[in-house]
Amino acid sequence: MNERLLKEFENIKNEHLSLDMTRGKPSTEQLDLSMPMMDVLNSHADLSDSHGVDSRNYGKLDGLDECKEFLADITGTNKDNIIIFGNSSLNVMYDCVADSMLYGINGSTPWSKLGKVKWLCPVPGYDRHFAICEHLGIEMINIPLHEDGPDMDLIEELIKDPLVKGIWCVPQYSNPSGTTYSNEIVERFAKLKPAAKDFRIYWDNAYSFHHLYEDKQEHIPSILSLAKKYHNEDIVYEFVSTSKISFPGSGIAALIASNNNLKSVKEHLQIKTISYDKVNQLRHVRFFKDLSGVKEQMKKHANILRPKFEYVEKRLEEVKDYCYYSKPLGGYFISLYVKNKAKEIISKCKEAGLRLTDAGCAYPYHNDPTNSHIRLAPSYMSKEELVKAMDILVLVIKIECEK
Amino acid sequence: MNERLLKEFENIKNEHLSLDMTRGKPSTEQLDLSMPMMDVLNSHADLSDSHGVDSRNYGKLDGLDECKEFLADITGTNKDNIIIFGNSSLNVMYDCVADSMLYGINGSTPWSKLGKVKWLCPVPGYDRHFAICEHLGIEMINIPLHEDGPDMDLIEELIKDPLVKGIWCVPQYSNPSGTTYSNEIVERFAKLKPAAKDFRIYWDNAYSFHHLYEDKQEHIPSILSLAKKYHNEDIVYEFVSTSKISFPGSGIAALIASNNNLKSVKEHLQIKTISYDKVNQLRHVRFFKDLSGVKEQMKKHANILRPKFEYVEKRLEEVKDYCYYSKPLGGYFISLYVKNKAKEIISKCKEAGLRLTDAGCAYPYHNDPTNSHIRLAPSYMSKEELVKAMDILVLVIKIECEK
Repeated sequence: MNERLLKEFENIKNEHLSLDMTRGKPSTEQLDLSMPMMDVLNSHADLSDSHGVDSRNYGKLDGLDECKEFLADITGTNKDNIIIFGNSSLNVMYDCVADSMLYGINGSTPWSKLGKVKWLCPVPGYDRHFAICEHLGIEMINIPLHEDGPDMDLIEELIKDPLVKGIWCVPQYSNPSGTTYSNEIVERFAKLKPAAKDFRIYWDNAYSFHHLYEDKQEHIPSILSLAKKYHNEDIVYEFVSTSKISFPGSGIAALIASNNNLKSVKEHLQIKTISYDKVNQLRHVRFFKDLSGVKEQMKKHANILRPKFEYVEKRLEEVKDYCYYSKPLGGYFISLYVKNKAKEIISKCKEAGLRLTDAGCAYPYHNDPTNSHIRLAPSYMSKEELVKAMDILVLVIKIECEK
Repeated sequence: MNERLLKEFENIKNEHLSLDMTRGKPSTEQLDLSMPMMDVLNSHADLSDSHGVDSRNYGKLDGLDECKEFLADITGTNKDNIIIFGNSSLNVMYDCVADSMLYGINGSTPWSKLGKVKWLCPVPGYDRHFAICEHLGIEMINIPLHEDGPDMDLIEELIKDPLVKGIWCVPQYSNPSGTTYSNEIVERFAKLKPAAKDFRIYWDNAYSFHHLYEDKQEHIPSILSLAKKYHNEDIVYEFVSTSKISFPGSGIAALIASNNNLKSVKEHLQIKTISYDKVNQLRHVRFFKDLSGVKEQMKKHANILRPKFEYVEKRLEEVKDYCYYSKPLGGYFISLYVKNKAKEIISKCKEAGLRLTDAGCAYPYHNDPTNSHIRLAPSYMSKEELVKAMDILVLVIKIECEK
């Protein structure tokens, strides 16, 4: 058996493939969906928003009102709880942490003056979140992510430590497992009472429109609304963006938070810049118009993505005796677990020309304690490439597990 | 005499004017010059750059190569010494200072761990530069700005202090005096040898194309090239942007620096974001094409700005016995000095409906030691508004000086 598999592996190697499955990038076909957006603001267009503000000039540090109204509509938020930034929500998150290091939050001691700062990290999670903490020397603590969300008992215990200042959450179609938090868990988050007054939930709502199915969709309640109910609205920063709705590098990102928090963020923001790209804000509003415009666009994305996810899952069934994998209803990733063999499989796939995200990527310090997790990103590849990629992956799993 | 002036003042007040001369904003007419840029990338355009990179997707953290080539062409720099950012060079400057606070530079102690950090500030200067230092608790030291640039003797003395970590420079058509540094002064900057290894010259080259006249132009040499000649290329961060070439809020900003410095900047940048808005980068290249395209555009800007500057200067001649003012050949501002009376004049202008930038704005801590400097920003107003504004200003100067 092993002999035949190894022969097959040599054959694939000789094809000298170069397949990249490392990142959750939309495919060219998906990018093409937003090409009509390039026409909505032409040289004859009026580039003032509905409130008469010229999007081309300086000003409106926190964003065009017309665009805030659009974002309020699609996120179910009050427009006064929104600041619109540039093209990257990751950058907004980084800045929120960096601001806390330099200035503290609402009068708290700047974190850079504390001996140590700790952070809670549901795992598996998003590597770029963890990279921010690692870069800033913030100590990360793993929190198991269950099927309905992070282990809340553990979180409620750990936040009694005043050095615990934050938690990363991707509450819907989580990166990379596709997990959506249950209503009960969102509610427990909304009423968290940490010892540290400057503790914040970093609620990275990156995939709230990113359903794969029309008839099987998961939704989460607005955490800010729930937190308000508990008079706890300063607990959360919610981050949203259109990166995977329009163009990944040329979307708009926003922060949704309490008046208190926004006031504090703006105090620093006014020092950092004069204003963000409001022409691009206007371009988005004019193209999508409202919630139904966004939903329409996301259906088209789903029609491209769904067959890729289904194909990956179908192929993984061939090796289901050796592994466990998530079957997400949305988002951009599948979590594959092969016990004790993640590193070996990723390395052998690379040998055959298939690059997967590095082992441990979904864990703080790149340390997957059981060396089991592999993040699969089926979005960018063409169907033909995906067939080849799964040929390799399935073969390598067999080779490694039938040793 | 005074009686007649006061009567005139009452008459103007009764017009209930609302004139805003506070910021260096391009006028609507200037914004219209870039409207054809809205057509260069339409839904039928190929959004890949000349190296085949799809500008729409994630990636190319430091910018599209085609856009780097464009910026290298227009700034006379090597493309490998460029990182392209988002829409705001001010934001890049802030991030460079904030990074130094959090991480130090190339292995130096993070400035937030030092008891004190000092900064040199040629005055009058740009209020938003000083605001960054003040916000981060960096102690600012005034440096007189002479007709040919800052007082270099003083600078060379002060940088013997290892706590002096940087200096703000607007070397060409300086904000707000319009001063251009002489070649000799640029050369002295290029060979500065400060005690602090992590001292950097913040060379904000915001107005390098912003000539008011075709036949009277000031230029400065490339400081990075000069610094290289003296094996001193890590001394400088140069900042450029198209904010006042295309659209103020929707341009592109870039950092020009040594390989060493760019490596260190990228080390942090890769944590902060995935990539900047490359579609907008491509839009700029396709619209301006090259240096001559930029020059052509700047001629059109000059044709709109020049009459405004000349009008302000002509009107100031009426009160030349009471004041001194700069007659810049480029940039966005005129520095007006009325000895000991800046606050009083600005406040009285406001009473009559003309808002000027706050007194002291061009000095660290808003403290103009002789209460003399008034920053005039003629660009945004229409000719008609400018007439009214100068009526008020001239009248108020007479009233205050003939007391």
